Amino acid sequence: MLITASAPGKVILFGEHAVVYGKPAIAVAVNKKAHLTIKERQDSKLKAHIKGLDINASLDLENIPTINHEFQRGILKYVLKSWEIIQEKQKTVPVKGLDIILNIEMPIGAGLGSSAAVTVATLSALNKYYKADLERDEIANLAYQVELKVQGAASPIDTTLSTYGGAIYLSTNRKAEKLPVKYELPLIIGHTPREGNTEELIRIVRKRMEKYPNSIKPIFESIEQVTMEAREALLEGDHEKLGELMNINHGLLDALGVSTPTLSRMIYQAREAGALGSKITGAGGGGSIIAYSPGKTDEVLQELGKLEKAFQIKLSEEGVTTNIQ
Amino acid sequence: MLITASAPGKVILFGEHAVVYGKPAIAVAVNKKAHLTIKERQDSKLKAHIKGLDINASLDLENIPTINHEFQRGILKYVLKSWEIIQEKQKTVPVKGLDIILNIEMPIGAGLGSSAAVTVATLSALNKYYKADLERDEIANLAYQVELKVQGAASPIDTTLSTYGGAIYLSTNRKAEKLPVKYELPLIIGHTPREGNTEELIRIVRKRMEKYPNSIKPIFESIEQVTMEAREALLEGDHEKLGELMNINHGLLDALGVSTPTLSRMIYQAREAGALGSKITGAGGGGSIIAYSPGKTDEVLQELGKLEKAFQIKLSEEGVTTNIQ
Repeated sequence: MLITASAPGKVILFGEHAVVYGKPAIAVAVNKKAHLTIKERQDSKLKAHIKGLDINASLDLENIPTINHEFQRGILKYVLKSWEIIQEKQKTVPVKGLDIILNIEMPIGAGLGSSAAVTVATLSALNKYYKADLERDEIANLAYQVELKVQGAASPIDTTLSTYGGAIYLSTNRKAEKLPVKYELPLIIGHTPREGNTEELIRIVRKRMEKYPNSIKPIFESIEQVTMEAREALLEGDHEKLGELMNINHGLLDALGVSTPTLSRMIYQAREAGALGSKITGAGGGGSIIAYSPGKTDEVLQELGKLEKAFQIKLSEEGVTTNIQ
Repeated sequence: MLITASAPGKVILFGEHAVVYGKPAIAVAVNKKAHLTIKERQDSKLKAHIKGLDINASLDLENIPTINHEFQRGILKYVLKSWEIIQEKQKTVPVKGLDIILNIEMPIGAGLGSSAAVTVATLSALNKYYKADLERDEIANLAYQVELKVQGAASPIDTTLSTYGGAIYLSTNRKAEKLPVKYELPLIIGHTPREGNTEELIRIVRKRMEKYPNSIKPIFESIEQVTMEAREALLEGDHEKLGELMNINHGLLDALGVSTPTLSRMIYQAREAGALGSKITGAGGGGSIIAYSPGKTDEVLQELGKLEKAFQIKLSEEGVTTNIQ
């Protein structure tokens, strides 16, 4: 029996960093996915392979070491934690070995929610394999728990989008409202290796907030208003407004201190090549920018691709899917 | 008789654009000056020469044409308007020809207040020549009138600083408070040819303000707070804070839509070369950036100078001076 599961990544369109301070955010699931295949083994080993990254890991499920094993590296932590959390849910299930093959279509650590996509795909595949009968909302919630346990802190946005797909507006009362976006929303990602991790960047913003509260609070207020206006523009399909609001949001992120020379260069390259708007997406400090350039996709892709990795993404209405062969 | 007058240019440290909406600003006079020499002629011609720019102009003061004369070009408009306004003040003075030689130590149209410096120097020299006995505050006020007449709109900051020198904080009630800054305040200017003029850039911001008032108003509030905190940092000589506040102010200007690819590149080049802070100074859309880099002046100068014109400036406590030989 071969079980496959595929879960989409995401991009944050508006509101990153401010969302940490209770402000709203808009994010969409994208057509870059994490695909996972599991196959039963005859022994008790858990073996994982990530395609294209030359990453292989192995451990014995009957005797998981507490330290120094191969599933402690990077994204594999999420795979093992997902397996453990499913085990907790299904205490009667016997431990069996599994071969896991991962194919992750997006760069890892680029603000595209690769860890959430891998987690949701892993949980969904294991849910089928162990016949745990978990509903989607349980998968979404468990995936959030996995992210919390691995990272210490997490946003439910990523795991929600990897589970359900579509576009969501996370309101100030922390409700995720599904936005019915009726068009493809073509976006370009420009990606550069990251200098800092998300926690460090959140710390940078917090330091600035604590040092200059009077100056930084109105920046969060502006991001809140930008995000609210962007919600309307997204629903109405007002491309020009969406672009302008991205540009405003980018300047505000720059003011928070999370841009870098490379990100800043890409932002302006994209605009010069015809993008209606461009901004950092996610935590910044390296990582990714998004550019919105309906009708000018090729020009922007070409310009950004000259120096950095650049690729196109689209909104994915589809959430996690599973398949049993 | 040879009369010379020298008046300093200025840079805006904090608050540009927001100042148009009643917010405070900080600006300082700088050690780049406009020097003007006048010499009486035997005929009734007004002749001007700008050193280093190969600009020469001539007209007959007894028969000034209403259109199409050589003093309608660029900065010479301020020279002629200054002469006219002094004539109005001193109706009894006979019309005599003059040779005017200008030496302007700063790039024109770079946000360094070259027009105000030229105007204040011209008025001060003519004041001596015609023995008009105008006091400094009258010079400052007349210079503001000249700028208003030539440009249609003007800020009194430039003419105030060219007249008095020093550092000023323009408060929300439009009072110019002199800030006693006790150190040199070394700054680096990175200058790039301008794409738009000040009026166009003010229009760009106004358009954004009218389209997204809820998003843009808090940006002005943040700039106000940044400027107020910078006033304290400037008085205390807190270099690190000054730099950080410049960086915040720059992101906010970027959010207002007045940065360009080149300005943005220079901003980050300066920071990478060791500047504590860097930001657009003045209207943006090309023009100048300032970088604050005590102890790293050479590194930043060298880095910026690779691709653009870059030079060092310092605070000038001295305002306009005149000399009669």
